[in-house]
Amino acid sequence: MRVERPLLNALRNPSRVIAVALALAIVVGTALLALPVASADGQRAGWVTALFTATSAVCVTGLVVVDTATYWSWFGELVILLLIQAGGLGIMTLATLVVMLLSRRVGLRVRSVVQTETKAVTAADIRRVVRRVVLFSLSVEAVVAALLTLRFALGHGQALPQALYSGVFHSVSAFNNAGFGLHPDSLVRYVEDPWVSLTIAGAVIVGGLGFPVWFELARTWRRPRQWSVLTRITVYTTAVLLVTGTVFMVVAENSNPDTLGGVDREHRLVAAFVAAVMPRTAGFNNLDIAALRPETLFMTDIFMFIGGGSAGTAGGVKVTTFGLLAYVIWAETRGERDVHVGTRRVPTANQRQALTVALLSVGIVVLATLTMSALTTQGFDVILFETVSAFATVGLSTGITASLPVPAQLVLVALMFIGRIGPLTVASAMALRERPRLYQLPEERTIVG
Amino acid sequence: MRVERPLLNALRNPSRVIAVALALAIVVGTALLALPVASADGQRAGWVTALFTATSAVCVTGLVVVDTATYWSWFGELVILLLIQAGGLGIMTLATLVVMLLSRRVGLRVRSVVQTETKAVTAADIRRVVRRVVLFSLSVEAVVAALLTLRFALGHGQALPQALYSGVFHSVSAFNNAGFGLHPDSLVRYVEDPWVSLTIAGAVIVGGLGFPVWFELARTWRRPRQWSVLTRITVYTTAVLLVTGTVFMVVAENSNPDTLGGVDREHRLVAAFVAAVMPRTAGFNNLDIAALRPETLFMTDIFMFIGGGSAGTAGGVKVTTFGLLAYVIWAETRGERDVHVGTRRVPTANQRQALTVALLSVGIVVLATLTMSALTTQGFDVILFETVSAFATVGLSTGITASLPVPAQLVLVALMFIGRIGPLTVASAMALRERPRLYQLPEERTIVG
Ligand SMILES: [K+]
Ligand SMILES: [K+]
Repeated sequence: MRVERPLLNALRNPSRVIAVALALAIVVGTALLALPVASADGQRAGWVTALFTATSAVCVTGLVVVDTATYWSWFGELVILLLIQAGGLGIMTLATLVVMLLSRRVGLRVRSVVQTETKAVTAADIRRVVRRVVLFSLSVEAVVAALLTLRFALGHGQALPQALYSGVFHSVSAFNNAGFGLHPDSLVRYVEDPWVSLTIAGAVIVGGLGFPVWFELARTWRRPRQWSVLTRITVYTTAVLLVTGTVFMVVAENSNPDTLGGVDREHRLVAAFVAAVMPRTAGFNNLDIAALRPETLFMTDIFMFIGGGSAGTAGGVKVTTFGLLAYVIWAETRGERDVHVGTRRVPTANQRQALTVALLSVGIVVLATLTMSALTTQGFDVILFETVSAFATVGLSTGITASLPVPAQLVLVALMFIGRIGPLTVASAMALRERPRLYQLPEERTIVG
Repeated sequence: MRVERPLLNALRNPSRVIAVALALAIVVGTALLALPVASADGQRAGWVTALFTATSAVCVTGLVVVDTATYWSWFGELVILLLIQAGGLGIMTLATLVVMLLSRRVGLRVRSVVQTETKAVTAADIRRVVRRVVLFSLSVEAVVAALLTLRFALGHGQALPQALYSGVFHSVSAFNNAGFGLHPDSLVRYVEDPWVSLTIAGAVIVGGLGFPVWFELARTWRRPRQWSVLTRITVYTTAVLLVTGTVFMVVAENSNPDTLGGVDREHRLVAAFVAAVMPRTAGFNNLDIAALRPETLFMTDIFMFIGGGSAGTAGGVKVTTFGLLAYVIWAETRGERDVHVGTRRVPTANQRQALTVALLSVGIVVLATLTMSALTTQGFDVILFETVSAFATVGLSTGITASLPVPAQLVLVALMFIGRIGPLTVASAMALRERPRLYQLPEERTIVG
């Protein structure tokens, strides 16, 4: 691969670029949020509060230790909004560039995010990718903001400036899967307003699928047979997870008066669907998380861990990882030597990457849960929920975040950062580097199970 | 492979043999335990109680809904003992035969459990394997029973017949990783008696490593460089897990007065070691499980899920599966194309089996935990502990088993059965069957993470 500039050179190691960029944004964000002018009461926020909030915003997580609307000033909220936009756009752009690099190097077929024939990546290519991602993001956000503003003004009687501000804030927060809201109850007050909740859910899904998938779908949505492996796995897995989540939510929570059972009957299906969208990995909630049944909490852990699409604003191990592993298991239980997705064969190295991303992520969550469990007196179920939510940059919580001791909050800060850069960098680092095979040892099997 | 007899023919599908044999044993055991003579009070035990106990014994799990020593008569206890011996011996023999079949078919190098040069498996081969496994089991059990009887008689003042009975019962239960005891507190009363607890822990480890590994170690324990992949992974992973478990137990429970903190200081290290042995997957307990810290309970979940050695009496996904996946991740993060264990390369098909066994097992435990969570009002942590314990045929419990509603107990019955036959049959079925590749599609990668 020919690389022409220092910037391009840096992209050889996208993991480092992403980690450094996000860390810088967090440092700047922490400094700004610690200014007296950022707090509503003009008192300087504590460093841990500023650090936690900045990390949560940059990593588009949405976990909070203070109520966003009441604690922060107008300036503070603007900082948060800009951090979300920078974090979301940054991750999406870099991830799309990684996809492009991979597609040149290792035969990843994604319909020409950049249409050139050569294997070289030029500065012009990068500019084109950045321009397209920015254009895509801002367009979707503008449409969503307009829809929300209309509804807030006309349906909820807000003054236009207030409706516009709330519309833009929720739009940016939703598209970037950040989950920061302007109400202490997140979106619970809109659970019976499909206009608001479905618009936000739509923005979440669009942002969470990822730019390369949308770019390909824009051209080939009528011809699914031509979809690349990336698009095929992302679309199918997302559909399956949304349907499963909605059905589970109805079955488990329909009789719970504190959640779905308390929603007007005609709005329940929409409410269940929206509740199934949010764990992957927007982090808004339209139902009271603390009141969910234990089985729903656990199922939500799983949905959060799986997360959304690669190269989008969602977190988690990603539907590509989960979906690919499902294809692998399907092939294995049928005794098939190869793993086929549509009309393509997925190489074994790719399967091994998915395995590694998934199992390392399990390891990190387990380690963090053990640590948090030792640091706090909270129950195991709410701790697991909190660590998964932080690692998968979801932002849902049973409400314990603010009352956790500082060391436990710092564990969450670390989890949000690792969870945001981890799976992508691990996967891209692995995909971009492959040692030549210098020698080959004789083969031998073992039995497993 | 040449197969000569109907019996041998059946072995082509070992999964079916194992499932049918275990199911038959459970049916017979249930019928016997439901006889009035089996209960201490001469009243017929309920069918669910009889079924649960028989399944727990045959699947060498050790979960109980009634106290073994007080509820069952001498006849009932003898039935349980025989079911344990039959279940343990049956699984070990069949698993060893599977190893033998695999070693002939797919290049599994295990130092000649049956030493013949041909690829055919004869009836004589099978007789030889059965004889060796039985001889091995009974010898170890006899030594362990003798050691325990001595101690019970001399150190605990029991009359010789009582000491002998208790010695034999605990020996068989320990070697077969069954975890049935004769005291309501399992082994808590022996926590400061290293003679008893270390002898039982030793029997558990020997039985849990599996026959093929011992057979190979008997010849090559001085020359680790010659070990097969199976033996190497089993021994190393077991050592790592035992050390990790002991250290974790000391760190987490040393300050807990209801568990390790209540043990005499000079006996704590031994107690921690024994407590680390039991979750994998014997199921005796020398500390009060219900009093363990939440983080210890969760860590124990993980140790139980991993389990013991393949082709032994232990349950879980097995250390071979876990260890092999660790090797895979290690190779992947170093950017190595091949997975090397010692001086051998593990084929990708083998890696995929390990992945499938591990992830299907996770799926089953998740499904069962969700179901149990909906069926009961118990907390999530104790339910997860119970389902993992049943699936991995461990038998540890926080004490909720007896008070669970019948449907939840039946879920545990199903889990014990699936957990006992599942991973082995899945793995062997996959390894013995491989479809020829009729065509090959073009290759394409996706990105993950
Ligand atoms: K989020
Ligand atoms: K057991």
